[in-house]
Amino acid sequence: MPTDPAASAEAVAATLAAIRARAPLIHNITNFVVTNTTANALLAVGASPAMVEGAEEVADFAASADALVINLGTMSAPRAHAIRLAVAAAEAAGVPWVLDPVAAGAIPTRTDLARTLLAARPAVVRGNGSEILALAGGAAAGRGVDSTAAAGAGLDAARRLATQARVIAAVTGATDYVTDGTRTIAVTNGHPMMTRVTGLGCTATALIGACLAVQRDPLAAAAHGLALLGVAGEIAAARARGPGSLQVEILDALYTLDAVALARMARIDRV
Amino acid sequence: MPTDPAASAEAVAATLAAIRARAPLIHNITNFVVTNTTANALLAVGASPAMVEGAEEVADFAASADALVINLGTMSAPRAHAIRLAVAAAEAAGVPWVLDPVAAGAIPTRTDLARTLLAARPAVVRGNGSEILALAGGAAAGRGVDSTAAAGAGLDAARRLATQARVIAAVTGATDYVTDGTRTIAVTNGHPMMTRVTGLGCTATALIGACLAVQRDPLAAAAHGLALLGVAGEIAAARARGPGSLQVEILDALYTLDAVALARMARIDRV
Amino acid sequence: MPTDPAASAEAVAATLAAIRARAPLIHNITNFVVTNTTANALLAVGASPAMVEGAEEVADFAASADALVINLGTMSAPRAHAIRLAVAAAEAAGVPWVLDPVAAGAIPTRTDLARTLLAARPAVVRGNGSEILALAGGAAAGRGVDSTAAAGAGLDAARRLATQARVIAAVTGATDYVTDGTRTIAVTNGHPMMTRVTGLGCTATALIGACLAVQRDPLAAAAHGLALLGVAGEIAAARARGPGSLQVEILDALYTLDAVALARMARIDRV
Repeated sequence: MPTDPAASAEAVAATLAAIRARAPLIHNITNFVVTNTTANALLAVGASPAMVEGAEEVADFAASADALVINLGTMSAPRAHAIRLAVAAAEAAGVPWVLDPVAAGAIPTRTDLARTLLAARPAVVRGNGSEILALAGGAAAGRGVDSTAAAGAGLDAARRLATQARVIAAVTGATDYVTDGTRTIAVTNGHPMMTRVTGLGCTATALIGACLAVQRDPLAAAAHGLALLGVAGEIAAARARGPGSLQVEILDALYTLDAVALARMARIDRV
Repeated sequence: MPTDPAASAEAVAATLAAIRARAPLIHNITNFVVTNTTANALLAVGASPAMVEGAEEVADFAASADALVINLGTMSAPRAHAIRLAVAAAEAAGVPWVLDPVAAGAIPTRTDLARTLLAARPAVVRGNGSEILALAGGAAAGRGVDSTAAAGAGLDAARRLATQARVIAAVTGATDYVTDGTRTIAVTNGHPMMTRVTGLGCTATALIGACLAVQRDPLAAAAHGLALLGVAGEIAAARARGPGSLQVEILDALYTLDAVALARMARIDRV
Repeated sequence: MPTDPAASAEAVAATLAAIRARAPLIHNITNFVVTNTTANALLAVGASPAMVEGAEEVADFAASADALVINLGTMSAPRAHAIRLAVAAAEAAGVPWVLDPVAAGAIPTRTDLARTLLAARPAVVRGNGSEILALAGGAAAGRGVDSTAAAGAGLDAARRLATQARVIAAVTGATDYVTDGTRTIAVTNGHPMMTRVTGLGCTATALIGACLAVQRDPLAAAAHGLALLGVAGEIAAARARGPGSLQVEILDALYTLDAVALARMARIDRV
């Protein structure tokens, strides 16, 4: 197995330390189910989140942010318009951005919007297997917003999508894969109960945004964001009785996470 | 007191087991205060929630769902439009749906919208005493969004509403009543502190939606949804210090609830 | 140091008791990040919250409420329109209202809207140092939605703003100051971890709204609202492991708070 400097607990810890030191401003345009939990996850990890989606406000705000997070859940025409304005402003200003193509493959308008946005070259696109497969041109489509795709199919699709769209593609599931088409990192942290908390995929994308703000290598940023959430999820699951306490404990774990815990728990490898 | 096969802890447990086995896709169009907690309650109980309200998306999505949940809180013209489209698509596809007429009686436009939607024949309508009374043509109106109606008045109104609108009417309070106008089931689970957590009425309606997806008898579905939340609320209240921990514990309790706990705790009876 | 009957733990306890006795109806038009947590904080303290922002609904609703809370976060044109209607109705009906000028100074359209609303004379305006400084005509502007202003600058700006706009100005931070331009009360409760939970500033504003509903002196209402949250935050921080549990514990603490705890913990003084 090849080694990769980004694929280590030390590299994850360095990214976390940089977030806490710099408190990067993360501009989120996200779905209304997860605005609160996304903002809280970003605050817990040490970033400075802002949820701004007014059409008159987004361009200036995105241009001044350290990273932009675009999430297609609960889409509406005004939000789609705001997203286009924000993405254009971020591109012009050199602000890195990450795309979460919620329900691509399951809802045709989302697939279309995700494809349009991919053409604008996000640094990273993160989705579940069904979403990544749909964007890579695969046949399998999700039902609802959760993934129905098999994990191995996800990695192949992510490699294809990364190559086609020239982005970093991150496909999450029991194992998370992050790839640029040739270089691939796997993260095997996390816990099955995390699928019973709404919006943790959206949280993963937002944490990738925080990492992008302080880490110039977008593949490393994506892998580190997923490792942070995965390790926090494991710490939380050991204390939680169910998905209610799991959500609470994940925020606490993101806040208290340190290099020692990461060294002991992070499972991040070049594959 | 007559007996009723639906009015038993065993029947509630069977419905819960069916939800967990089938993970039905529950399409929610609900108010923006409770999107997160509603999705989490549905995930905790084993269903697969989706919050979709884009006008271009709702019809196809509702037609492919296993149940549709319509909630009138924080109403807007675009959401009212999306609701009409979703309801029409659900009706055409034979997808059962449940209506939560938030603030009917307290806000005239809500009363009007609720009446229009009742005419489209939801399987179940669930409200507090003030809301059900307003829809049944009673004089008492709520102030704000919480109920000011007496419990007995609620049952009479629910029977009247069920008969008039040919739906199952569920009126919730210290005692919950579910009725088709003649057959009535009472659920006396729950805890007073639940009124200090926002949106647990909305959660009740969403759980009824999950039950409707797996239970062909809508009166049973409504009663079982209310029993699931009531028992979870009692388990949670025994552990909670206040409404913050109560909300967390309710999600944990919905996740861990089993036939043994239901047999010991569910108070569900034909009346 | 002058004494002030409003600047005492007993006065805070009396306001809390009045909220619990009367359960005032608090109409909130607030940003979509905090609707759930705001409603829960108001319920926990004993008030009756309602989130209503439909253009056809807000005027009648605001006129019948006991207080109105206006928050400029995640602004949109429809919500700005609803805010104007609600404020006009509240003014006409003599309903006290409080303004939270989220991101004034950081986003030009917010600064403009906040100035327009200030001219309509809220009873209280509450913001962080950057927001109050921006509205008082100071040069320092926030980056994102969190404050970058120094605390001392905040008090001077609050005095200036209170005098100019003839309102009570509350500026919150490590020390909270509430002033009418000459009479000033300081509250030094709270905990640094509270800055890692999204929307606790919005919660503070909503609690001021609850106090305004039962307390005719708006300066006292503002100070008492801040003291309630600050004391609850300290109780919560002593139990919390991180910001996730802090949010939960704050709701529990608001629910269980009593005159004994306030007498022991409230640090509220005329300055």
